[in-house]
Amino acid sequence: MVVHLAKSAEKVKFFLNDARRSGLAIGLVPTMGFLHEGHLSLVRTAREDNDICAVSIFVNPLQFGPSEDLEAYPRDLERDLRLLSREGVDLVFVPEVAELYYPDRSVLVTENLLSRCLCGSARPGHFDGVCTVVLKLFNIVRPDRAYFGQKDYQQLQIIKRMVRDLNVPVEIIGCPIVRERDGLAMSSRNIYLDQPAREAALSLSRALGEARSLFEEGERRPDVLLSAVRRTVSSCPLVVLEYAEVRDAEDLSPVATVKKQAVLALAARVGRARLIDNILLEPGVTCSRFPRS
Amino acid sequence: MVVHLAKSAEKVKFFLNDARRSGLAIGLVPTMGFLHEGHLSLVRTAREDNDICAVSIFVNPLQFGPSEDLEAYPRDLERDLRLLSREGVDLVFVPEVAELYYPDRSVLVTENLLSRCLCGSARPGHFDGVCTVVLKLFNIVRPDRAYFGQKDYQQLQIIKRMVRDLNVPVEIIGCPIVRERDGLAMSSRNIYLDQPAREAALSLSRALGEARSLFEEGERRPDVLLSAVRRTVSSCPLVVLEYAEVRDAEDLSPVATVKKQAVLALAARVGRARLIDNILLEPGVTCSRFPRS
Repeated sequence: MVVHLAKSAEKVKFFLNDARRSGLAIGLVPTMGFLHEGHLSLVRTAREDNDICAVSIFVNPLQFGPSEDLEAYPRDLERDLRLLSREGVDLVFVPEVAELYYPDRSVLVTENLLSRCLCGSARPGHFDGVCTVVLKLFNIVRPDRAYFGQKDYQQLQIIKRMVRDLNVPVEIIGCPIVRERDGLAMSSRNIYLDQPAREAALSLSRALGEARSLFEEGERRPDVLLSAVRRTVSSCPLVVLEYAEVRDAEDLSPVATVKKQAVLALAARVGRARLIDNILLEPGVTCSRFPRS
Repeated sequence: MVVHLAKSAEKVKFFLNDARRSGLAIGLVPTMGFLHEGHLSLVRTAREDNDICAVSIFVNPLQFGPSEDLEAYPRDLERDLRLLSREGVDLVFVPEVAELYYPDRSVLVTENLLSRCLCGSARPGHFDGVCTVVLKLFNIVRPDRAYFGQKDYQQLQIIKRMVRDLNVPVEIIGCPIVRERDGLAMSSRNIYLDQPAREAALSLSRALGEARSLFEEGERRPDVLLSAVRRTVSSCPLVVLEYAEVRDAEDLSPVATVKKQAVLALAARVGRARLIDNILLEPGVTCSRFPRS
């Protein structure tokens, strides 16, 4: 089976017109390409939930800061299409930058609360770029459901907030982080890691695993959980922690004691890569997915 | 025939579900209520163009500045519903503020170019409020077409820009200004005018008519056209001109000589009211709609 490739919004609309008229459910997985098992798990869930599965591949310049890795961001469209064909994806939307952005574009979607913390502090404008492109993709594909990974936890919550605040008629589904066997969260940016950095990067998931153990033993104080994280990470000189924080799982507000669902999220520089990872802290729930340290 | 009244987004969706599934075309006329013939002309066009005609009535707090007339803005829902019933409107959406805005809302649509001039200079944030609520209404009603008056010319162009930049799947239709017999552009805010102010307000359309005459005689220099406007308006001490400008009809950029379609737009305080009006300047086209001075 060969997947249908659309390079223009017009072609996407044309391809999906009949499906929409027939009342078929459409699922969308927005990606920046260079796909890994994390993306493919989203695709599989989207296929299960919907009649039509669409994937977009677009490295969105609007969400990269001037000193970030827009140019270096890994790309391999041929391999991506092969993987998506194999998954039985119906449509892949691969627009050029000029297809999505007019030179005199002047409208942005902005988020002014959840995007102020965590990655948003170090990446001003990043989440406005994400919101803007995601809304555009929603308006082009008009899916019933859209799928995002929980690795980009802040992004997921911001998109849910956008959908709520703008009455966007799309159901947002967050899917669990997919990890390498040794615990490293899958990311297209893992390609930036050389062998020593790859090994050092393991300290991130190990640190989260230790915090989870403490949490499961009853520890509810963020500062204690975060001390454990920092201790583990700081033992690796190749890893520079940018932040590690415990925040409310929904509105990302600071948490004094974990009483309801929270997220422990971190970002770090490891060699050339900026990596993020997180775990959910759910009082009363034990999570078997996360590898024990 | 009694029009269907929906107070919640949920009810709107429910009411329109069947129509949408049957492929019927839906037209939306977003208003702030206190309807006049200008609104009704939009409704009539929407009815002609579509199978289903929906009207929203919502005085949007987000588009009012702190010193503006949000509280005083005229309201008469009963009369509005009577008028809309008479026009054969199918659905009227009348949400409360709490239905559209969560207390912790944090997402805005912002326009950063066309909204910088004309009314945008004096009303910071106004057009972001307009864009945000219009996008929300579009997402709730999901119309095929939406209708806006050309009296709010800058608003119309900004909404067209939003639709372009965010790939919103709605066709935007601008409809001509409707005027009183004596030339005053219809506006819900005309209710603020007492008799002397009402007479003084006439100078605005008269001034535009004079500029049109000059234009039709071949005058293409904005400063000459605007001098004529200012001269006429300044003869009325009750009228305080806020701005009068000639701008490109599409992107609202300044115009040195009118070579392609332009707009001559003005805003003025007349008594308690802030009024706006405009004419299109189209080289090669004469407009018969506008009353001659």
